[in-house]
Amino acid sequence: MSLAPWRSSLARAIDQHHSQPYSRYFQLATVQADGRPANRTVVFRGFLECTNQIKIIIDTRSQKTDQILHQPWGEICWYFTETREQFRLAGELILIDTNYPDPELQKARHSTWQDLSDNARLQFAWPDPGEPRAKREVFSPPPPNPATPLPNFCLLLLDPSQVDHLELRGDPQNRWLHLRCESQIWSTVGVNP
Amino acid sequence: MSLAPWRSSLARAIDQHHSQPYSRYFQLATVQADGRPANRTVVFRGFLECTNQIKIIIDTRSQKTDQILHQPWGEICWYFTETREQFRLAGELILIDTNYPDPELQKARHSTWQDLSDNARLQFAWPDPGEPRAKREVFSPPPPNPATPLPNFCLLLLDPSQVDHLELRGDPQNRWLHLRCESQIWSTVGVNP
Repeated sequence: MSLAPWRSSLARAIDQHHSQPYSRYFQLATVQADGRPANRTVVFRGFLECTNQIKIIIDTRSQKTDQILHQPWGEICWYFTETREQFRLAGELILIDTNYPDPELQKARHSTWQDLSDNARLQFAWPDPGEPRAKREVFSPPPPNPATPLPNFCLLLLDPSQVDHLELRGDPQNRWLHLRCESQIWSTVGVNP
Repeated sequence: MSLAPWRSSLARAIDQHHSQPYSRYFQLATVQADGRPANRTVVFRGFLECTNQIKIIIDTRSQKTDQILHQPWGEICWYFTETREQFRLAGELILIDTNYPDPELQKARHSTWQDLSDNARLQFAWPDPGEPRAKREVFSPPPPNPATPLPNFCLLLLDPSQVDHLELRGDPQNRWLHLRCESQIWSTVGVNP
């Protein structure tokens, strides 16, 4: 694969915000079974090696799992506060759960689990999200095995096929639209903000 | 109307971030005609007087206008970086364009236009968003009349009927779900994060 043309701008923005941990958070929109949108903050876990696919982690017990099975398409909105830049990344969502057959991606699921902090891993052993609040002690389960993901741990990939990059700082603002065609080649065009 | 139970938490978060202008930005998810989600950063313009409805401004020439006509439901994801809180506000979207018949809401559209900065108003006179980049001089049109909105200026209202409030700082994290029933009464329940 070749590095997509938007990767260098995104890498620069991430680098310029390395002192703000929250700059690795972005908002992922999905669609519910009733056709209404859903939107939540998730954490950027890097790119899948040798691809332009963005790694996210999710819990199969969360509502987004069903939403993604129903409509495997998502749009990330990633706003960088200091450089005043927005990246909107739209593409297919690929859910790598415990039964996913591809051994390479299953390996990526395992290594993503291993790279998490103890605290992040522990949350997958917490009681069911969205259910009525459980007692305090249920939130202190035995720490899960750091080598082997819990069955409800999923690696979620977003494979961008359209990236809309807006720089609010320009005068006027700058905006580029990057599109991937079927032959996997990217094209870039400057558009009005 | 009565103030919804989530209003005080949201007001506190806004107040605690008054020194960060970007804390008034949030992400609005909508659904496209093809059933895929869309997501972008927009600016909080306050609440419509005497309601719990959130004010946003949009340009009828932007893609979200068609999306909202097709699926008048949206979800805001609003993350506050310092207090590490997230509000997800889901509800009906009401598009107040130049032909909207209700005189009170038309008045609100006018006053929202009047409250904008000169720069913000000027953007509604810029060339069509998303089209191939126009020449520089087209971005310096004569300033629009500050009293009367341009025809492509819309007030967009999101009328929340579900608010999911997450505090990441708790140990464990705290999360509340606020639901509005048909009689307009709100109920609140603590749920697992």
